[in-house]
Amino acid sequence: MLVVRSSSFWHNMSIIRVCFLSTLFSLLAASSLCMEQTLGMRIEGSHIVMKTSCSSFFFNSQVNNAQGWKVIPEECEDLVARYMNNGQYAVDMEGVAVAVLDYLKDIIPGEDGKDVVIFDIDETALSNLPYYRKHRYGAEVFDHPLFSKWVEEGVAPAIPAMLSLYKVLQAENWGIVFMTGRTESQRNITSQNLLDVGYSGWTTLLLRSPAEAHTSAVEYKTRKRLQLQHEGYRIWTSLGDQWSDLAGAAVGNRTFKLPNPMYHIP
Amino acid sequence: MLVVRSSSFWHNMSIIRVCFLSTLFSLLAASSLCMEQTLGMRIEGSHIVMKTSCSSFFFNSQVNNAQGWKVIPEECEDLVARYMNNGQYAVDMEGVAVAVLDYLKDIIPGEDGKDVVIFDIDETALSNLPYYRKHRYGAEVFDHPLFSKWVEEGVAPAIPAMLSLYKVLQAENWGIVFMTGRTESQRNITSQNLLDVGYSGWTTLLLRSPAEAHTSAVEYKTRKRLQLQHEGYRIWTSLGDQWSDLAGAAVGNRTFKLPNPMYHIP
Repeated sequence: MLVVRSSSFWHNMSIIRVCFLSTLFSLLAASSLCMEQTLGMRIEGSHIVMKTSCSSFFFNSQVNNAQGWKVIPEECEDLVARYMNNGQYAVDMEGVAVAVLDYLKDIIPGEDGKDVVIFDIDETALSNLPYYRKHRYGAEVFDHPLFSKWVEEGVAPAIPAMLSLYKVLQAENWGIVFMTGRTESQRNITSQNLLDVGYSGWTTLLLRSPAEAHTSAVEYKTRKRLQLQHEGYRIWTSLGDQWSDLAGAAVGNRTFKLPNPMYHIP
Repeated sequence: MLVVRSSSFWHNMSIIRVCFLSTLFSLLAASSLCMEQTLGMRIEGSHIVMKTSCSSFFFNSQVNNAQGWKVIPEECEDLVARYMNNGQYAVDMEGVAVAVLDYLKDIIPGEDGKDVVIFDIDETALSNLPYYRKHRYGAEVFDHPLFSKWVEEGVAPAIPAMLSLYKVLQAENWGIVFMTGRTESQRNITSQNLLDVGYSGWTTLLLRSPAEAHTSAVEYKTRKRLQLQHEGYRIWTSLGDQWSDLAGAAVGNRTFKLPNPMYHIP
């Protein structure tokens, strides 16, 4: 058995797309439920006739079926833009906040401040939507230096539902741990950005040290969580827009996946 | 710390809904992207002003944020009906099939028939949509005897994308294991139903024995998978519409969550 994982599902799919372009267009029909730009797919015998629709991209990316994708399918840019801008994203975030509160409502945090909820930062506490608006909502290949420059401006807005959730949890005596893939060199700007938009009084802010620069997100975050446990923290839940925020040890009894159709961090 | 998990998030939410009915209606506004019947939610200070939208129900149920729900929110019946009937569900299933093929495409199954893919049955290989059409798409409380009666008619249609996927995988020499929460007493009718709609030549069909009647889905399925491994099978992936199909040991390197907004099996 030979196992070679492909790096980008949605990229590979675009090759298949070209091959089957003729059948593709015959399937190009919008349905009544947000299926504009649906392309469709059929498998006949052992032959893949076609694939992809923005709705199925959305579904597959959010439930963690699609892995390793690097850019959103080009034809989905409009759909993702509309999702992010027209209120749907904000409402779905609110839905997550309520689900979190429902899970935590019968747990009474101790007086020692050791009962904590872990918040990711990018696309969880803070929004990089202003950046992604200028970069085709993830339809452009990720530009690390350019994104870092944006981060270092320190002007990312809060995600309203998450800021509200944060304040509710603090009022209920929960400790909040911020854990981010951002680097130690971005500690000051990140702290300031968080404070500027209304987050304050967190328990701790964990960033990637130079030694952790090349660790995968899952490995890095797992190590940090185990360290927290070692320090006596009781982790009840982890919130993040990436499945890699929610995998590995010590994530809590339940985790919460926030919507993010713009990018994928393995 | 007292931990008492509530049984039904979406049910409890309907109580909150009643309490905040006045603020609710002020938020009742459809957006341009499939947000009809959106109700909205706000958290003010430590006070939950409102919650729920069918879109956020859909998102939260599918990514496994909402757990323990027993019926879909009543106001989402129309949205779920449209999702299931207008082609979106079928297209999303096709998207999953392609994602599965993409994952498996570089793995060459051995000649010994021991490299297997696990298929769940209900809402994976077979569709119970004809039943759920008569039962408000999950807005009615689940009626076990009535559902069993439907199962025992043996007329559940195949889910086209999954049947196509099944045939592709067989042609590529993959073994297929069916693993279902249905009982041994339903073995004959289940086999016949599968054969009638086009599934044939599976490696094995695993059902719940009387001794396993009261085991949770995760426990039961984990035990069966470990047994398969013990018998020398190499499990590469598990496909199911419930997260409980995809949790526990020996699910494979990657799993695939199929859409199902109608019901939840913990």
